[in-house]
Amino acid sequence: MDGQSAADQNRDNDRLNKNLARLLPALSWAANYNRGILGGDLLAAVIVTIMLIPQSLAYALLAGLPAEMGLYASILPLVAYALFGTSRTLSVGPVAVVSLMTATAIGKVAAVGSIDYATAAIAMAMMSGLILLAMGVLRFGFLANWLSHPVVSGFISASGIIIALSQLRHILGIAAHGDTLPELVSSLAGNLSDINVITLATGLVAIAFLFWARSGLKPLLQRLGMSADTASIVAKAGPVLVILATTMVSYLAGYGAQGVALVGSVPQGLPSLSMPSFDLELWSELAVSALLISIIGFVESVSVGKTLAAKRRQRINPNQELIALGAANMASAVSAGFPVTGGFSRSIVNFDAGAQTPGASIMAAVGIGLAALLLTPVLFFLPKATLAATIIVAVTSLLDLQIVKKAWHYSISDFIAVVMTITATLVLGVELGVLAGIVASVLLHLYKTTQPHIAVVGAVAGTEHFRNVQRHNVITQNNILSLRVDESLYFANASYLEDYVYRFIAENKELEHVILQCTAINEIDMSALGALDAINHRLHEQGLKLHLSEVKGPVMDGLEKSDFLQQLSGQVFLTHHQAVTTLKHDEIEPYII
Amino acid sequence: MDGQSAADQNRDNDRLNKNLARLLPALSWAANYNRGILGGDLLAAVIVTIMLIPQSLAYALLAGLPAEMGLYASILPLVAYALFGTSRTLSVGPVAVVSLMTATAIGKVAAVGSIDYATAAIAMAMMSGLILLAMGVLRFGFLANWLSHPVVSGFISASGIIIALSQLRHILGIAAHGDTLPELVSSLAGNLSDINVITLATGLVAIAFLFWARSGLKPLLQRLGMSADTASIVAKAGPVLVILATTMVSYLAGYGAQGVALVGSVPQGLPSLSMPSFDLELWSELAVSALLISIIGFVESVSVGKTLAAKRRQRINPNQELIALGAANMASAVSAGFPVTGGFSRSIVNFDAGAQTPGASIMAAVGIGLAALLLTPVLFFLPKATLAATIIVAVTSLLDLQIVKKAWHYSISDFIAVVMTITATLVLGVELGVLAGIVASVLLHLYKTTQPHIAVVGAVAGTEHFRNVQRHNVITQNNILSLRVDESLYFANASYLEDYVYRFIAENKELEHVILQCTAINEIDMSALGALDAINHRLHEQGLKLHLSEVKGPVMDGLEKSDFLQQLSGQVFLTHHQAVTTLKHDEIEPYII
Repeated sequence: MDGQSAADQNRDNDRLNKNLARLLPALSWAANYNRGILGGDLLAAVIVTIMLIPQSLAYALLAGLPAEMGLYASILPLVAYALFGTSRTLSVGPVAVVSLMTATAIGKVAAVGSIDYATAAIAMAMMSGLILLAMGVLRFGFLANWLSHPVVSGFISASGIIIALSQLRHILGIAAHGDTLPELVSSLAGNLSDINVITLATGLVAIAFLFWARSGLKPLLQRLGMSADTASIVAKAGPVLVILATTMVSYLAGYGAQGVALVGSVPQGLPSLSMPSFDLELWSELAVSALLISIIGFVESVSVGKTLAAKRRQRINPNQELIALGAANMASAVSAGFPVTGGFSRSIVNFDAGAQTPGASIMAAVGIGLAALLLTPVLFFLPKATLAATIIVAVTSLLDLQIVKKAWHYSISDFIAVVMTITATLVLGVELGVLAGIVASVLLHLYKTTQPHIAVVGAVAGTEHFRNVQRHNVITQNNILSLRVDESLYFANASYLEDYVYRFIAENKELEHVILQCTAINEIDMSALGALDAINHRLHEQGLKLHLSEVKGPVMDGLEKSDFLQQLSGQVFLTHHQAVTTLKHDEIEPYII
Repeated sequence: MDGQSAADQNRDNDRLNKNLARLLPALSWAANYNRGILGGDLLAAVIVTIMLIPQSLAYALLAGLPAEMGLYASILPLVAYALFGTSRTLSVGPVAVVSLMTATAIGKVAAVGSIDYATAAIAMAMMSGLILLAMGVLRFGFLANWLSHPVVSGFISASGIIIALSQLRHILGIAAHGDTLPELVSSLAGNLSDINVITLATGLVAIAFLFWARSGLKPLLQRLGMSADTASIVAKAGPVLVILATTMVSYLAGYGAQGVALVGSVPQGLPSLSMPSFDLELWSELAVSALLISIIGFVESVSVGKTLAAKRRQRINPNQELIALGAANMASAVSAGFPVTGGFSRSIVNFDAGAQTPGASIMAAVGIGLAALLLTPVLFFLPKATLAATIIVAVTSLLDLQIVKKAWHYSISDFIAVVMTITATLVLGVELGVLAGIVASVLLHLYKTTQPHIAVVGAVAGTEHFRNVQRHNVITQNNILSLRVDESLYFANASYLEDYVYRFIAENKELEHVILQCTAINEIDMSALGALDAINHRLHEQGLKLHLSEVKGPVMDGLEKSDFLQQLSGQVFLTHHQAVTTLKHDEIEPYII
């Protein structure tokens, strides 16, 4: 082997390592792992584990699945994301909105509690994983951009309301069902006579305690002599305390005999690995839902990841995130879990507790694994009302009705988009809700471009700058109409411009020149080119010249490919100032000479 | 009655007259009608009548309807449009594309030749009329703008191909059916052995004569001693000559006994007036098709009307046109006709023949009425192949495959739109074809806005104007990044800008200021405002200031309603020149003092 080939090999190795590092971001943090980082990660892992146990059980309940599936969905998916994800602190697992969407989707193909139902949930995780992976490989991360901020906020808030309502039945101890606000309300109202008082009391106490614990537990612990840090950690264990307390009361008071719904027997041990069902009929029935779940899960996860990364001046890579979430969902599917994504509250806790790397998530996965091995017998007596209480309290943080107010103040179309999304989600359910939001925001955006703002502009004294005559004190010329069209010209607004120009020239008989200042025209498509051509000819017939100014490079490239510039009665000027100076001069000259 | 109330009454009368004139544009031309106008209109009416008789029969055949329905659709609709329409010279009646769309739509609900089929066609005219009327009253004329020029051209060309293919069976004398290119081709190919040689010979001779007549008949007539004007008029009667000749041959040679398909017995007399069937099931089945037929018919009619009006410096009012076309279709429905719209060839003939007012159309309606009363017995022996030949020759003028070449040269997205429309129309049929075209052009437009052109700009020497550094020889400052984003900022491109800015500042360490020149930013929605906020904070953390320049009035109004301007680390400048001058100065000052 000579020197050349050794250098070649080194270069090949470098390239291989680089590609490997891109594919497996874990390599970048694992290489520098040390005892200091381990300390931070371990503490975060303990806190997240304590938080995840009740959350996992609760979101399994929300999805209508057996409690153990919540634990299963919080083991391997965390490891998979830790290996492939680009966020250092994101915590993956079952989350509220995705669990609700899963319940809605699989509720259409199987009855809650049936084996088919659990099978469908596992298949959904696999489909969602494959969709996310494919989107990542194809670099389709940009699809998430179609969900505007008002649509996402509105959707999550409305989902929160539906989630809270869906859990009320566990608090009241009655049967109720439905995926929409009207269904849930009428179903709950119809069964109100079946209320189980003990269940209700347990649920209300749990809710009250959890709300209080948010703000009141930490100061109390500190007053009892605990250090601020310890108190802060113990306070996050509020849900665990409620679970322990209500489980004990349930056991001692014999809740089971009094008609209180309990979690019941939960299999002890780790999930066995197996491939999910590849039933073609089932898969095709779930396909659209799986796509929606994937996109919503991705958007939620990426927005959390971005927020946290920005705080430590790190960055995440959306396309790699798709791959990592895909891996996490496939890991969930092969270990009898259900769809997962990066969750807001758990990631914040992980971050605040000092997690430095995804190593924290791997250790949390070990923690949940231990819980699945050792703690499940304790869960037998846990009232479902307690889990419902943790869900209800958790989703109140999703409710952001401020967005409606903000949108109302900021812009009417953002307001319409958010109201449409909230209404559609509440009335038609989560899937149609998110679709309605996307469609509404796209149509509103398009609608605005069909009637563009057109300003008559004049020169700002002392500058070469031109502004709207209605807003600024500017200098205009009687023989020149300077128009600034504030939109790209395309088929949907081409005739609007035509009408505007014709109306204007009909009312202004002194005009000799019309100059279109093209600063905001980023595109002229063929239909708009036809309209410009028509305007040019019409003006020419009436003895007026059409000029263009400040045409951008890409637009000019297009015009040069057509014969429009040969037809144009006037000229194309580099700047509007030059255009007005030239054309004004032309008019004055005859009088000077 | 005192003076005051008389003045009031006058004013009321004036207002009433004005409203009436807007509602009934016929009043404006009828008031000034005189003998000179009558002469022009009468001549045009005679020519149009001669042209309309074969066209009406042929388009009835194309729609799969009895020949007399073609005549019926050319009587009352002309009168209705003459009363309500705003074009002086548009000629309304059955047209090729709308007849094809009608055949496609009603072919789905009834068998060709059945009474139900004719009933459905009449119902379709009524539905289309009501839809057009509603669109007019609601001022929804802008909907037509969603059909871009490439989509309309591609759609009409592809429809022309389908029409020509669908008529081939009448030329060949074989059975064939289908609404798409593959269906028609395989259906024709499968029945080729049934060819009727006499039918084929008649059809081919008719086609050859009609093509020759287009260019050769007028010079021949002139050589035979006819004046240029008379020759021009007689030459337009080419189709009538073919009909007369082939009918005579058919009668004399006993075509009927030799298996040649003839028009057969056509009821003599005017249509009886009656309300069309209001079968709810039928109407709901036809609803989507009726909407598409209405929009396509409107677009075709308005584009013809606009072209002709422009030639005489007249204008048409799109919303009133909707009302007039609505009235014309309802008139067609109550007189046993089928959907109609303003046709290109007949309107050109009407215009060229010197029609001054819609009075010409009213007289043409009388002419067609006379034909229905007197001429129908003659039609018994008319071979269908002759009518098919007139259709085939007529639709060749619809084929504009130049549009594909033009779009290819002008812009890739226009090219994709036209190719998608043509392919979808040929392969999937007219309805899905036009829908595919609309969806494709909207998505292409949106896609372009998601990855906006962003230019780094510098000052053009000797001006206050800033241009792209890659296209112009401009002056830049090391400490200032001047960015011009060539698109409105909204949810679909907000993160694109964010990524662009971050990437740029990571590579340029000397920067102190980033100035966004906002000339092309016509809107900043809430999602984009969030992105700007994030950029502002991120730059601030890295010691950079974000500034805006040349923010438009409406955009500034929005920003002022938010707290973005309070958060902004830099300033908002009236002009980009001022921004650069100010910020450059700031930097130099320390060295001067």
